[in-house]
Amino acid sequence: MLVVMNSNATEEQIANVVKSIESKGFEARISRGEIKIVISAIGSKLTDKRDFELLSGVTEVIQLTTSYKLTTRAFKSDDTIVEVNGVKFGGKYAGMIAGPCAVETYEQVDETAKKLSEIGVKILRGGAFKPRTSPYAFQGIGEEGLKILRSVADKYGMAIATEIIDVSQIDMFMKYVDIFQVGARNMQNFNLLKELGTVHKPIILKRGLSSTYEEWLMSAEYIMAGGNGQIILCERGIRTFETYTRNTLDLAAIPVVKKLSHLPVIVDPSHGTGLRDKVEPMSRAAVAGGCDGLIIEVHYNPDCALCDGAQSLYPEQYKQLYDEIKQIAPIVGKEIL
Amino acid sequence: MLVVMNSNATEEQIANVVKSIESKGFEARISRGEIKIVISAIGSKLTDKRDFELLSGVTEVIQLTTSYKLTTRAFKSDDTIVEVNGVKFGGKYAGMIAGPCAVETYEQVDETAKKLSEIGVKILRGGAFKPRTSPYAFQGIGEEGLKILRSVADKYGMAIATEIIDVSQIDMFMKYVDIFQVGARNMQNFNLLKELGTVHKPIILKRGLSSTYEEWLMSAEYIMAGGNGQIILCERGIRTFETYTRNTLDLAAIPVVKKLSHLPVIVDPSHGTGLRDKVEPMSRAAVAGGCDGLIIEVHYNPDCALCDGAQSLYPEQYKQLYDEIKQIAPIVGKEIL
Amino acid sequence: MLVVMNSNATEEQIANVVKSIESKGFEARISRGEIKIVISAIGSKLTDKRDFELLSGVTEVIQLTTSYKLTTRAFKSDDTIVEVNGVKFGGKYAGMIAGPCAVETYEQVDETAKKLSEIGVKILRGGAFKPRTSPYAFQGIGEEGLKILRSVADKYGMAIATEIIDVSQIDMFMKYVDIFQVGARNMQNFNLLKELGTVHKPIILKRGLSSTYEEWLMSAEYIMAGGNGQIILCERGIRTFETYTRNTLDLAAIPVVKKLSHLPVIVDPSHGTGLRDKVEPMSRAAVAGGCDGLIIEVHYNPDCALCDGAQSLYPEQYKQLYDEIKQIAPIVGKEIL
Amino acid sequence: MLVVMNSNATEEQIANVVKSIESKGFEARISRGEIKIVISAIGSKLTDKRDFELLSGVTEVIQLTTSYKLTTRAFKSDDTIVEVNGVKFGGKYAGMIAGPCAVETYEQVDETAKKLSEIGVKILRGGAFKPRTSPYAFQGIGEEGLKILRSVADKYGMAIATEIIDVSQIDMFMKYVDIFQVGARNMQNFNLLKELGTVHKPIILKRGLSSTYEEWLMSAEYIMAGGNGQIILCERGIRTFETYTRNTLDLAAIPVVKKLSHLPVIVDPSHGTGLRDKVEPMSRAAVAGGCDGLIIEVHYNPDCALCDGAQSLYPEQYKQLYDEIKQIAPIVGKEIL
Repeated sequence: MLVVMNSNATEEQIANVVKSIESKGFEARISRGEIKIVISAIGSKLTDKRDFELLSGVTEVIQLTTSYKLTTRAFKSDDTIVEVNGVKFGGKYAGMIAGPCAVETYEQVDETAKKLSEIGVKILRGGAFKPRTSPYAFQGIGEEGLKILRSVADKYGMAIATEIIDVSQIDMFMKYVDIFQVGARNMQNFNLLKELGTVHKPIILKRGLSSTYEEWLMSAEYIMAGGNGQIILCERGIRTFETYTRNTLDLAAIPVVKKLSHLPVIVDPSHGTGLRDKVEPMSRAAVAGGCDGLIIEVHYNPDCALCDGAQSLYPEQYKQLYDEIKQIAPIVGKEIL
Repeated sequence: MLVVMNSNATEEQIANVVKSIESKGFEARISRGEIKIVISAIGSKLTDKRDFELLSGVTEVIQLTTSYKLTTRAFKSDDTIVEVNGVKFGGKYAGMIAGPCAVETYEQVDETAKKLSEIGVKILRGGAFKPRTSPYAFQGIGEEGLKILRSVADKYGMAIATEIIDVSQIDMFMKYVDIFQVGARNMQNFNLLKELGTVHKPIILKRGLSSTYEEWLMSAEYIMAGGNGQIILCERGIRTFETYTRNTLDLAAIPVVKKLSHLPVIVDPSHGTGLRDKVEPMSRAAVAGGCDGLIIEVHYNPDCALCDGAQSLYPEQYKQLYDEIKQIAPIVGKEIL
Repeated sequence: MLVVMNSNATEEQIANVVKSIESKGFEARISRGEIKIVISAIGSKLTDKRDFELLSGVTEVIQLTTSYKLTTRAFKSDDTIVEVNGVKFGGKYAGMIAGPCAVETYEQVDETAKKLSEIGVKILRGGAFKPRTSPYAFQGIGEEGLKILRSVADKYGMAIATEIIDVSQIDMFMKYVDIFQVGARNMQNFNLLKELGTVHKPIILKRGLSSTYEEWLMSAEYIMAGGNGQIILCERGIRTFETYTRNTLDLAAIPVVKKLSHLPVIVDPSHGTGLRDKVEPMSRAAVAGGCDGLIIEVHYNPDCALCDGAQSLYPEQYKQLYDEIKQIAPIVGKEIL
Repeated sequence: MLVVMNSNATEEQIANVVKSIESKGFEARISRGEIKIVISAIGSKLTDKRDFELLSGVTEVIQLTTSYKLTTRAFKSDDTIVEVNGVKFGGKYAGMIAGPCAVETYEQVDETAKKLSEIGVKILRGGAFKPRTSPYAFQGIGEEGLKILRSVADKYGMAIATEIIDVSQIDMFMKYVDIFQVGARNMQNFNLLKELGTVHKPIILKRGLSSTYEEWLMSAEYIMAGGNGQIILCERGIRTFETYTRNTLDLAAIPVVKKLSHLPVIVDPSHGTGLRDKVEPMSRAAVAGGCDGLIIEVHYNPDCALCDGAQSLYPEQYKQLYDEIKQIAPIVGKEIL
């Protein structure tokens, strides 16, 4: 930590800052410049920089120790590759996940999975428990939905990814699910993250609606600190002043987070835009931008979907998109799986 | 719902929209204007407006039925007043809650509560379970903290408000706590909200970092729909591009939400600004703006606080602030309790 | 315009709304639903919807007439193609513009233009007048810079695009410049936009830091209303809570704005990210997302640039990027010029 | 400037950073810690920190020299008080400015000014040139409006404040206007700011829709650097994800900016909220928060206003508000003028 003071700070003010630094268990080193005096607090403890910001004579306090460690490139320089059902996320590979927003009926999942499977998709998505803004909206069909997903996935040799919304569901999910998904609204549900650290299954961690890259990696750190390193980060759009699209898909997250961290970064253009005809261009853009995978909503009959039908692709649209990204991927050194 | 089409839409396009509306269980009524054609979908069902936005010829779709009901002024026109330990929130009253950010030791809580009690505060706050961005930061002392709060509160005749972060803690909280607080990060933890709907204790529901007024009221609706109408809404700052303050305290939330809803709205200037010297002016501003209460962090020795000391007031600062808002309140027709 | 009232609105309230609508020169039509009453105000006048929002009994007011007209697809359904020096923006074409952030010396522009010209770039960018946040930062070399740009461009058979920051510069610019660029900070400098409507040169209109798609098109409307339809819209990142990148590049703007308007949309990944190593992936992403061109900062020696060197590509980086996007473009039906 | 490197940076990387620092004209000092190495660049030059961020081994670069100088408390520790027509802004005083959004007719200004004058207002506001998002909206009546303002103001012994939107208007404004107002959209119209630095009249500088406190002060620095220190900063709401209110009024700007700078800070609750019934509580809040003045839209007949009638107060509402803030001001050590 660096405490910056004006060069006209009094010796008494400087001494007071030094005293404060030492009282928190750090060593203090003073460096006097023309315009500013900088006092370094040396040590590996965590502290709240605002404790120093209010001291007399202080103009700024700068934190140096990043609080996430296991998730950083400094900790592990090579890409983490998460593999599920032969599909790889990370390194040279971009994995595909597709399926309906919500599980509705066996037939709906079966019809959709069949078509996806024919196209080459090996991981099926679908929500059984849906976190909805309104208490009066469709909330998912629960464990029955997990059973349907499992049964259909087994039929077509697919793995499944689905959202968990409470710690109490972990045991139930262990019976059916291959990839646990943590939604944007739960990105800082720290109890849930801690428990998922003890699970031996891959976790998709979606970015919160207003979470910075650093907070996102901190949440991943909760999972890794618990012992589970199979984490797939998922950019799904952030909230901004622009309301035309459901969210603002922040594709720069791909190169930024992949530089900061060794974890794979996939993109969800369905929630990121909220509009079917924007899903295709943004999917292609994500692949050209170097993402490690895509998770896309596809429904065999979007017009009758109980949830988010308007952002779901028709299977034939997905097929065409799949063909296009297969061509784009090698240009950026990636292979679509 | 209103589906707006260009006046040059074809009869076939119009017929297709009408068919879609009817297939979702609504009645359709067409109104042709000079520039636009508006088709009203009459009925009380919930639907996803994007299902219609993508239909050919449609320029805009407008939702009319607000999805929150019990929390609206239309449902209940007079102010809801929540009363705890003789303190009232809502109507002509503004209630005061104060205490340390986190419970650290018996002595710390006791010293702080003693001073607050002398000033006239009857509700003590303090966190036993702390949701922290970093897994390596202090996470609170747990149930031991609740015991300390209870014990000290009983000594001084105070009630306690503290944050609950998981459904599994409800039974434990019932033993010790008078007011359950739902933090900003859990504002859309719908499982928790549903369960709190069955609790017979007041709930402080903080606004999420990037939640709109409508989403905030929707979350309150989850609690009310479960049968618990004792809800106190708490504005605590939103996330914006401005990073100088911890959050941007949105005081306009007071008059806006109080017009939309009958529920009381209090303000947390400590998290809203994150800086001690901004807490006082923003507290006075909140009272002058008509808030129904304040929740403020006070620590008998902020410089040694384990958490958020930099935004905690000294007891003597709080006393002066208390005197000032006692003078401001009657000017806006309020009484400080 | 639609004025929405609760179904329990009194006849007096309804009559009052009707009177207000008529007093503003509209015709009023009432449509009574189960939950809501909707009063349509028919007519082509512009009005401020808030005038009706505060009337007693009104719950919502919805504007129907979009205020931009000439720039809409409804006005002109086929893509506008802007052509400069044989380079086309729009339709099946994506045009390339490159060059240094700021004009510094003849040698710097000459060295950079020579390399760009060899790669195939036919439009050179470079700022002679730089709008800078600080009055103490380098503000550009003025008209001398325009002369350098013109002279170098003529040498290599290139056209030039450069930023205009004041109405008073128009005559001077007419002598040297092929494409006038309006920067993000001037997107709502309406006096400048009006004057540019009378200029017979293409205009690059950058999106403001916090401007919605609609406001952006409204600003283009100012230019088109003046008689100049040669407008190239440029997405260059918006301001959000995320401060790691200089701005948040909103690539969804490409498909969204191209659906709303017939005007071409290009992308500036240099300002959009502010970091050289993010420019390449975001450029590829923009092309895969269907943009009509790219404007990229390239400097023959970025380490010595007087302005924004950190976001400027080395010429060899640009060459590699150029090769990659040449491969991506045909996959999305585009040709790079 | 401080360049932070990981403690495992190689000596070659460190040497390279030192070389870069020295090549930009700074002196470099290395300080090695346990986790980080910090290299200080000593000197008073301005530089772009991103030039160092991309150097190998660098994790972070921190700018120390604030780029605004004349506007800081460090430069001038006592409050600047701007006085116009006996009204003071700053120090112990809060000045009142009121009037219609736009000048429409002599009668309208006269009727409004008469009522305001009776209440005690000595500075009249009113727009003659209106920057409007749409080219088809009412743009103001121009110089005729300035004449009306002047004539009415003289009749009632008032001063006038009105918005300037282009450099070319300065001479015209000098003839009629007492306070030049720079609107939010022109906060970074640097040409205009530079010219206003040479004017000997007070300037109201509104905060841009998405401008940070620092950028706002930088814009004030442009004016002060030109020689004009009579600047009144005006918070008028920022753009956030919340669209219910026209903008999000950031009242914390008052204590924050007043700590950073010696300049007075006033508040515009009319644009800040955009809704008449929110203007009153936010005005009271601003005064209780310590603002140095208020600028409020008042119209003798808001229902017929050509512009922003919905956010304009009725004269009698303003009178009641005036009485309330007269009572609140002394509690926070202020006098209303």
